Amino acid sequence: MTVERPSGRAFDEMRPARINRGFTRHAQGSVLVEFGDTQVICTACIESQVPRFLRGKGTGWVTAEYGMLPGATHSRGDREAVRGAQGGRTVEIQRLIGRAVRSCVNMKRLGERTVRLDCDVIQADGGTRTASITGAVVALRDALDKVGAQAAFREFAASVSVGIWRGVPVLDLDYAEDSSADTDMNVVMLASGGFVEIQGTAEKAPFDEAEFSEMLRLARQGAEDLIALQRTA
Amino acid sequence: MTVERPSGRAFDEMRPARINRGFTRHAQGSVLVEFGDTQVICTACIESQVPRFLRGKGTGWVTAEYGMLPGATHSRGDREAVRGAQGGRTVEIQRLIGRAVRSCVNMKRLGERTVRLDCDVIQADGGTRTASITGAVVALRDALDKVGAQAAFREFAASVSVGIWRGVPVLDLDYAEDSSADTDMNVVMLASGGFVEIQGTAEKAPFDEAEFSEMLRLARQGAEDLIALQRTA
Amino acid sequence: MTVERPSGRAFDEMRPARINRGFTRHAQGSVLVEFGDTQVICTACIESQVPRFLRGKGTGWVTAEYGMLPGATHSRGDREAVRGAQGGRTVEIQRLIGRAVRSCVNMKRLGERTVRLDCDVIQADGGTRTASITGAVVALRDALDKVGAQAAFREFAASVSVGIWRGVPVLDLDYAEDSSADTDMNVVMLASGGFVEIQGTAEKAPFDEAEFSEMLRLARQGAEDLIALQRTA
Amino acid sequence: MTVERPSGRAFDEMRPARINRGFTRHAQGSVLVEFGDTQVICTACIESQVPRFLRGKGTGWVTAEYGMLPGATHSRGDREAVRGAQGGRTVEIQRLIGRAVRSCVNMKRLGERTVRLDCDVIQADGGTRTASITGAVVALRDALDKVGAQAAFREFAASVSVGIWRGVPVLDLDYAEDSSADTDMNVVMLASGGFVEIQGTAEKAPFDEAEFSEMLRLARQGAEDLIALQRTA
Amino acid sequence: MTVERPSGRAFDEMRPARINRGFTRHAQGSVLVEFGDTQVICTACIESQVPRFLRGKGTGWVTAEYGMLPGATHSRGDREAVRGAQGGRTVEIQRLIGRAVRSCVNMKRLGERTVRLDCDVIQADGGTRTASITGAVVALRDALDKVGAQAAFREFAASVSVGIWRGVPVLDLDYAEDSSADTDMNVVMLASGGFVEIQGTAEKAPFDEAEFSEMLRLARQGAEDLIALQRTA
Amino acid sequence: MTVERPSGRAFDEMRPARINRGFTRHAQGSVLVEFGDTQVICTACIESQVPRFLRGKGTGWVTAEYGMLPGATHSRGDREAVRGAQGGRTVEIQRLIGRAVRSCVNMKRLGERTVRLDCDVIQADGGTRTASITGAVVALRDALDKVGAQAAFREFAASVSVGIWRGVPVLDLDYAEDSSADTDMNVVMLASGGFVEIQGTAEKAPFDEAEFSEMLRLARQGAEDLIALQRTA
Repeated sequence: MTVERPSGRAFDEMRPARINRGFTRHAQGSVLVEFGDTQVICTACIESQVPRFLRGKGTGWVTAEYGMLPGATHSRGDREAVRGAQGGRTVEIQRLIGRAVRSCVNMKRLGERTVRLDCDVIQADGGTRTASITGAVVALRDALDKVGAQAAFREFAASVSVGIWRGVPVLDLDYAEDSSADTDMNVVMLASGGFVEIQGTAEKAPFDEAEFSEMLRLARQGAEDLIALQRTA
Repeated sequence: MTVERPSGRAFDEMRPARINRGFTRHAQGSVLVEFGDTQVICTACIESQVPRFLRGKGTGWVTAEYGMLPGATHSRGDREAVRGAQGGRTVEIQRLIGRAVRSCVNMKRLGERTVRLDCDVIQADGGTRTASITGAVVALRDALDKVGAQAAFREFAASVSVGIWRGVPVLDLDYAEDSSADTDMNVVMLASGGFVEIQGTAEKAPFDEAEFSEMLRLARQGAEDLIALQRTA
Repeated sequence: MTVERPSGRAFDEMRPARINRGFTRHAQGSVLVEFGDTQVICTACIESQVPRFLRGKGTGWVTAEYGMLPGATHSRGDREAVRGAQGGRTVEIQRLIGRAVRSCVNMKRLGERTVRLDCDVIQADGGTRTASITGAVVALRDALDKVGAQAAFREFAASVSVGIWRGVPVLDLDYAEDSSADTDMNVVMLASGGFVEIQGTAEKAPFDEAEFSEMLRLARQGAEDLIALQRTA
Repeated sequence: MTVERPSGRAFDEMRPARINRGFTRHAQGSVLVEFGDTQVICTACIESQVPRFLRGKGTGWVTAEYGMLPGATHSRGDREAVRGAQGGRTVEIQRLIGRAVRSCVNMKRLGERTVRLDCDVIQADGGTRTASITGAVVALRDALDKVGAQAAFREFAASVSVGIWRGVPVLDLDYAEDSSADTDMNVVMLASGGFVEIQGTAEKAPFDEAEFSEMLRLARQGAEDLIALQRTA
Repeated sequence: MTVERPSGRAFDEMRPARINRGFTRHAQGSVLVEFGDTQVICTACIESQVPRFLRGKGTGWVTAEYGMLPGATHSRGDREAVRGAQGGRTVEIQRLIGRAVRSCVNMKRLGERTVRLDCDVIQADGGTRTASITGAVVALRDALDKVGAQAAFREFAASVSVGIWRGVPVLDLDYAEDSSADTDMNVVMLASGGFVEIQGTAEKAPFDEAEFSEMLRLARQGAEDLIALQRTA
Repeated sequence: MTVERPSGRAFDEMRPARINRGFTRHAQGSVLVEFGDTQVICTACIESQVPRFLRGKGTGWVTAEYGMLPGATHSRGDREAVRGAQGGRTVEIQRLIGRAVRSCVNMKRLGERTVRLDCDVIQADGGTRTASITGAVVALRDALDKVGAQAAFREFAASVSVGIWRGVPVLDLDYAEDSSADTDMNVVMLASGGFVEIQGTAEKAPFDEAEFSEMLRLARQGAEDLIALQRTA
């Protein structure tokens, strides 16, 4: 099957990805991650205490929050602080980021510390949640290094989207594809090869096992490239 | 592999499922769905208008909300109306229910009407989101019948959880399994066999393609049984 | 005076009342109470601590919350957790329930424990607050038994509505009557015969002492029947 | 029975009541009402539109809000605007005020106008809700006069508290009595003699019909005096 | 230049100001302050603890809140407790009041106590923030006296507005002037002559240094008069 | 007077300022502004409608919102969208930005359009509000150009902070100075030389007219440099 992607990319071709470490100076870890035109600032701040339910247990905690600047999207979005609540999509995404990043950390070795990850999208063009996860893991790693807690870092993990677009499995959907895809799937994979999260949603048409397998194969390939980028960043 | 499940069920055995239609009388559709000890009231109410962004387009809308009675769980949960906001888990679940149920509806044939689904858990023992979806689809069907909009109902869809528990893929996790599973996955499948939603999360250990395929196979089997139940209910 | 009530009941005839104990399994007390078509789930959960203002005083606390499933009414109601606040009517009712139920408990004997009562209406047909109180007292009793705190239970209390409908005092108003009553009055009475709460509101026409006395007489009769039901439940 | 009231008043003696009309100048009606040391500013503002659910029906609406200045009580209370919500007690009181004041108005004659009543307690010493109602009715009357809608005013109504204090029925409880009363009851009575609201709560001991009748007798006497005051104010 | 002010006052003439101490009885300091038709109740309540971030440091804290009764303005304002949040203007004003009043207090000598100031406008005619500050300082002083903490009071401070109205600098703008001024400036000055706050805003036309100096000169004169009034009150 | 500033700058020396236009691509105007280590993204989005209170009047509206990424400061700040409300400082700043930017716009020529400015601090080192204003004016200009509304742009305006630090007037305070200054003043000046906003606060010591004049002189000099930068950017 030959379908021309809006960007001219091959069906298994990711957008250029960049990871810019040390982007701002106050947080212990600070990364600007770019998946094509999608740009996210990921910071990691470490506090020397844990939430109440973990106190005295000798174990740490990792939590994530997600946001989007109002001007980051095609038409301006509401500022959630003004509306007085995070939207449902935001909550769903930050829960996903939190679970993904926790899989990279050994909580016992972290000790009674909390890592707070913040992923703020400054420009959106599809894939903000996968870029956020991929960048947050690097910010996490940098922050752990900075406080001498390298031992708490287990391994890298990266996230990429795959989907069925005009009937064809494609890798790393941009906004033009995402908004018209039949199926959209986000995958988080560890450097050691295991999956930690798969979220596939049929937006327009249901998918079958064969399509699913092909999407998973593409996702593995994309995630491996991103993990290589995390290592060299 | 032989692992004794807490309930004594076989690894591919679902809990007894029941769908009790006409459970309450005011909503156009009202179902009590039970997956073992998990009990959810699903109601479907139809309004003859659509949200502002759809007005005048001749198309309908389906939306879902989810809640849990404070006394439904082992230890009492906060009442979200008192806290002043739905929690992140609630938001994540109700967005999943909404997407799943929308896949059963032909919005053009629905016309300018809104179906509001409410899934309220009165007793929780694992699988509240899959039971909610499975019951909501029946409540939706009943409500569409009641207002003479049968033509807007495309087909049944059911949802079931699968997971890796003590290293073994199992079907329809109860609370005892869910709280100690390596991986937990929720699947929504249409009667025609396609998947519309897959959400797999590695809680304790990552999973690979082979485990994933086996979980998907179990999910298909479970969903087929539930769809048969929906048809006979 | 002869006025035909919509339900065909005599002016001093209550709807069939049922109290179904052990309705769900996690809360220490769980009751489904029915006043005709009005159905309320009342659960009682006991926690082994008290609010801050009571700590160290050797005395317990009882509190109540009230809610209505969105699909419980003729036309769907908003979900308060989504609106972000309990409505005024809800707040007024749960304060009434709390005061009523507290009159059944010896706080000293309860010791430093909190009983949390939740009354959730799953089907509404008038009298949801009186049914809630009547059911909550039974759930409370069961929960106290379960934790070995029987001694903290003073006595039963029941609640019933009375009103002036088409000029005639009637007992236990259903929705059809309630929405067109001249006066609506809710009464809470102890098993020992004293009143603990009377709330009478002239919706359409003011009432005088004679009407008031007659309503009170009916309320006493209804409450006595309900207390007998509580004892045999 | 002879019990010395903290204030030295006879059991059926009200505190000096004053109604100061034209207290502020912007609202159409503005009253400072005093029941002894309890002082409440009641304003009535008239808008020439009604809430959406009444539009086009040719009928008006009356609504009330209640508040307490933080410094009005013995120990400073939280400012509800800062906490982000009105408390349950506030909501309960303002609903009572609204119902009471609506009984004085002919909504048809009011036409499509809304009267907004605001009762703000500047000094509290028991009986803030009864003083609020008594003052609000006068503010309402003045505002109706001001806009030429006298015909919409039906009749005066006043409110007074009664209770059982140290076993004795007493009229118009101040804070010292209110905080230690066995039973506390608020009554709203029309100038024509009918009751529109009775809310009796056993705080410490239940009450019987005889006590109830005696309280009601005292309330009638107090309300008549207040209505006389409203007329002469 | 001769421009007739709406009130007929000279360009450098303040409205009659009054400070009525002991206005209510529960707060340790309570003042009714009037700048012409602007009337504000200022109370000061002292608590014997400080916010968490100051505990154990031997220093005190002063904080202020501001509100306006709904009926205080020409057309009724929303009640912020009902809307669920203080508005931006309110927040801005109460931060200004807090900073101004803190400049009058020696926090070390105050010790671990918190002074809570509440400024509630009961009638508004321009200058509510300057009247609030001027009255709050007196309420503060009275409250410190009452708890024997006179030593923590440094000196009086007063606030007054100045502006450019029809091209002319004027002192103490009322509502008619304020709503049509070119520039509006609020100044807080200590009794010892130093300024602690200057907030000037060009509403209609920018201002230059010369206009600024003239406004400052008027402000000094007005503040001196108000401080004299504070001393004699 | 010779005092060594922490940064080694002369008392009248600003930090290097940069204005980076076209920073992101979706908003009509998008600027990254830097005052030394302070970095703010300012976007301007134009909507073709105005708030309800302006409809049909042929005039436009300009509004501003301000935020700070949680990781932008030395120790991580709360995310306001999670807390559920903007803090007082945020509200105060965004009101200042809005007033300042409105002074650059001819609302009649803008027509019935709304310009929404968003200033989001990604790195904070003092002066975030002055940098925000200075950048927002450029974003505004670019956005007006983009929609062909150049005629609505009146003139540039810039903002700079001045203060008294260790007794000496200094220009453009960084965080080290800001947190220990005696007085802190923010000034907004138009290209044509008039002031539109002056906010001076004595943090530690009051200031007199002479100090005020000197600060104003420095502010004028700084603002002139920034306006030159705006023009060349």
